[in-house]
Amino acid sequence: MKTDITLKEHAPQGETSRGALLFYSQFDDPTEWADALQAAYPGLDIRIYPDVGNADDITYVLAWRPPEGFFAPYKNIKLVVNLGAGVDSLTGRADLPEVPICRLSDSGMMALMRSYVLFAVIRYARDMPDFEKAQRQSEWRYIHPTPLDRIRVGVLGLGALGSAAARSLADLTFDVRGWDLAPKQIDGVACFSDPGEWENFLGDVDILVNMMPLTTGTRGMLDKSVFDALKPGTKFVNASRGEVVNEDDLLAALRSGQVGAATLDVFVSEPLRSDHPFWKMENVYITPHLASITVPDAAARDVAANIRRVEQGEAPLHQVNPKAGF
Amino acid sequence: MKTDITLKEHAPQGETSRGALLFYSQFDDPTEWADALQAAYPGLDIRIYPDVGNADDITYVLAWRPPEGFFAPYKNIKLVVNLGAGVDSLTGRADLPEVPICRLSDSGMMALMRSYVLFAVIRYARDMPDFEKAQRQSEWRYIHPTPLDRIRVGVLGLGALGSAAARSLADLTFDVRGWDLAPKQIDGVACFSDPGEWENFLGDVDILVNMMPLTTGTRGMLDKSVFDALKPGTKFVNASRGEVVNEDDLLAALRSGQVGAATLDVFVSEPLRSDHPFWKMENVYITPHLASITVPDAAARDVAANIRRVEQGEAPLHQVNPKAGF
Repeated sequence: MKTDITLKEHAPQGETSRGALLFYSQFDDPTEWADALQAAYPGLDIRIYPDVGNADDITYVLAWRPPEGFFAPYKNIKLVVNLGAGVDSLTGRADLPEVPICRLSDSGMMALMRSYVLFAVIRYARDMPDFEKAQRQSEWRYIHPTPLDRIRVGVLGLGALGSAAARSLADLTFDVRGWDLAPKQIDGVACFSDPGEWENFLGDVDILVNMMPLTTGTRGMLDKSVFDALKPGTKFVNASRGEVVNEDDLLAALRSGQVGAATLDVFVSEPLRSDHPFWKMENVYITPHLASITVPDAAARDVAANIRRVEQGEAPLHQVNPKAGF
Repeated sequence: MKTDITLKEHAPQGETSRGALLFYSQFDDPTEWADALQAAYPGLDIRIYPDVGNADDITYVLAWRPPEGFFAPYKNIKLVVNLGAGVDSLTGRADLPEVPICRLSDSGMMALMRSYVLFAVIRYARDMPDFEKAQRQSEWRYIHPTPLDRIRVGVLGLGALGSAAARSLADLTFDVRGWDLAPKQIDGVACFSDPGEWENFLGDVDILVNMMPLTTGTRGMLDKSVFDALKPGTKFVNASRGEVVNEDDLLAALRSGQVGAATLDVFVSEPLRSDHPFWKMENVYITPHLASITVPDAAARDVAANIRRVEQGEAPLHQVNPKAGF
């Protein structure tokens, strides 16, 4: 879906400009993003870091994990867009400009996250690990399916991605419970937020899906006390950030069987080092941090819409509260 | 979800009866079904084969794969309900009574089928076989995800289950194409039925899902000519009946890579014999014929509703055309 629109040259010195967007990422293809942004906002002046040009031109920043001090040269920034949903690499740093900070929340990213969570949950709900094992033994081992509405899935964290995942699970008739620090309402999902309900929530689920953002308050929150509160054998899915989990406690719970199995997309240290015990554990399913990524075509439309809002003096969408961390 | 309602004794000789339902299955738990039927239709006179009582009492039959000649003793049958979605074991036989033949089409069965198809399709769409292989080598091997709307999924057969699966895939933003012998309309799914479009349909998809019923017309229809019409490396999912596929041709296509990988729930001969080459093929994922089963709680409500319709002189729902075979 590449477009034929070529990159506009930098505005020549002296020409009046509405400003320029600076793109920074070590992980994403800048050409694909520039094409998508040009299609979404024809004529937008796009600078790919480190080809910045005049730093004073930069009014918008679209960045993924920029290094400390990145923002210092740019005095005219009006909007920073985090190139992704998880903003933990932007929040809590001292060099952020005092302008709206937004995350991406595009439909492509949401669909990828929904697909990841559906895959991981269905795999457990439908006994697939047993069939994978039976196949290795060339054995036809029938297990009568459990109706999905008798399987209770708990979703921790009901932000944009968590809510979307919970809705998709509920649509598939799973018995879905959601938990968030703030009270939430989601059709078909029983939502909890009262700390007094925390232990009951944990003890009730068959599959627990972590979608909590990484903040100072959530770092290490999924520890032994949490795993001990689960029913023995509860399955666990981590699609948010490795640091929300105490990995030593998770490892112990997986070894004892208190956590029956885990699907892990994220880890405290990435890439997961090749001698980490998770790799060889039969009850662990590992993916290399890609449950959800930003999709340029869809996300560029969001970025363009937010730039237009700022140009028209309106508040941009999907703003982050850097102090709260999400 | 067992109920406390106990089975009603057979109506004593001489008492006027509205008739009785005869249950037959070698695969399903009759007690669970009897409980569910009693809950859905309190007072229903249920006979579990072979404890039939007076054959003339039998007015309704709920059966899964009854043997040839099964129906002969029952002269007062008004309705036959196939205990499942696939009716190929009922159609095309000479001993069927001339009464409405219905299939089950309950929400529990639909949800199981949707979950199976979502699992198999997402697994390919999200490159999971590559990550499974990388994990066996303790290797963090990142593959940038393909946005789901750039992945084309073809669903062959748009009956109740095929349509539901296609809709679930479209809801997840996959680019879904459907094919059926009869023209169909499904929101978000491009539907084809013209034989002239068959080869284009096949050549366009990244993942092909077979949901065709087994009939005299579909037996062996997915053969070399079909696999050759696919793009090299197309993934294949079979969630209908093994006999719709020419297994020798599929095996050859999987060996050559023309079909890149397959998820197979059904086979020409079940259980799949332990020396079948499918078991050991790295690009084949095998499950033991359980993509979808009937869920008693939900299905019993459908059966009860159909009995009430027949008692009130209305046509029952989900009727099968035994001549067409679906």
